[in-house]
Amino acid sequence: MEILKKRIIDEGIIISDSIIKVDSFLNHKIDPILMEEIASEFCNRFSDKSFNKIVTVESSGIAPAVLTGLKLKIPVIFAKKAKPSTMGSFLSARVHSFTKDKDYNIFISDGLISKGDRVLIIDDFLAHGSATRGLISIVEQCGAKVDGIGIIIEKGFQNGGSILRGLGYRIESLAIIEKISQNEIRFKD
Amino acid sequence: MEILKKRIIDEGIIISDSIIKVDSFLNHKIDPILMEEIASEFCNRFSDKSFNKIVTVESSGIAPAVLTGLKLKIPVIFAKKAKPSTMGSFLSARVHSFTKDKDYNIFISDGLISKGDRVLIIDDFLAHGSATRGLISIVEQCGAKVDGIGIIIEKGFQNGGSILRGLGYRIESLAIIEKISQNEIRFKD
Repeated sequence: MEILKKRIIDEGIIISDSIIKVDSFLNHKIDPILMEEIASEFCNRFSDKSFNKIVTVESSGIAPAVLTGLKLKIPVIFAKKAKPSTMGSFLSARVHSFTKDKDYNIFISDGLISKGDRVLIIDDFLAHGSATRGLISIVEQCGAKVDGIGIIIEKGFQNGGSILRGLGYRIESLAIIEKISQNEIRFKD
Repeated sequence: MEILKKRIIDEGIIISDSIIKVDSFLNHKIDPILMEEIASEFCNRFSDKSFNKIVTVESSGIAPAVLTGLKLKIPVIFAKKAKPSTMGSFLSARVHSFTKDKDYNIFISDGLISKGDRVLIIDDFLAHGSATRGLISIVEQCGAKVDGIGIIIEKGFQNGGSILRGLGYRIESLAIIEKISQNEIRFKD
């Protein structure tokens, strides 16, 4: 998705050779017009699929997930990174953040995902794939099927994407970064 | 907003006489079609204003804020409840959650809100108003102006709305709950 790659190059701040900050349109300040274009692109790429739910994780996955959900006219469920006191029975998965070097749990209330659901997972980043695998785990614990995974930015130099594709999951990443160096962000293709 | 009130009555789960859970369309599972209607309603109610930025706080404010931002063609900034390690200089405010009975800080990176910005604050709930006052504080620390506050559900029996209106802020709440009792949610009007 060329317009997305251009925004990453123009506005991305290189923190290290594995971390890029895109706070000006995705992770802190959100450009709703770009998010709508991203949602359209997900719909196009998955036009052969018939999802009935979208699952994401708070917070940066919510904007692209809701705009995709609006186009597909299906609900969005966002996993929580902390269990609210009002949450009853729930499903959870352990996630490791390599950026923050710590583990945390993600939670989805019982009953929001049902057996037979055809789920599209949407997230902002795919790197080692820990958060995505956590979402897959919860969806599958519910007896539902992950029918597609839509990622805005994949770090192609880390192994999350190749592991998940190897397991048979269909992943559509709108920008795959091959290499981050001091002055350059290089994309695959 | 009648369709919203109906959803609250039909789907809201009464936790106590001050807490209602709306996880089926707003706080956990999100109904994107309802969120778009909410965004249209905010645009209608504030049609006399000319905002150039929307400010909200993660996570439940993001969906209605982004859909409103899309209609108004303006960016959305969401305050974070934890400071990422990659965040440089920032503005912050202390917030008290009465539901969770604890204090936390909210953070917005320096430079995302500028002097002269005309800001619409959007949030899911207004109760005692602590989170909203935190957002106002950050916006005003930046030299920007809070030109409107759009709230989905206001707890009219708590004092956040009356305090903020008393201070001269324009608040548009789409559903104002007057009373929550064991079997009934009563709205103002």
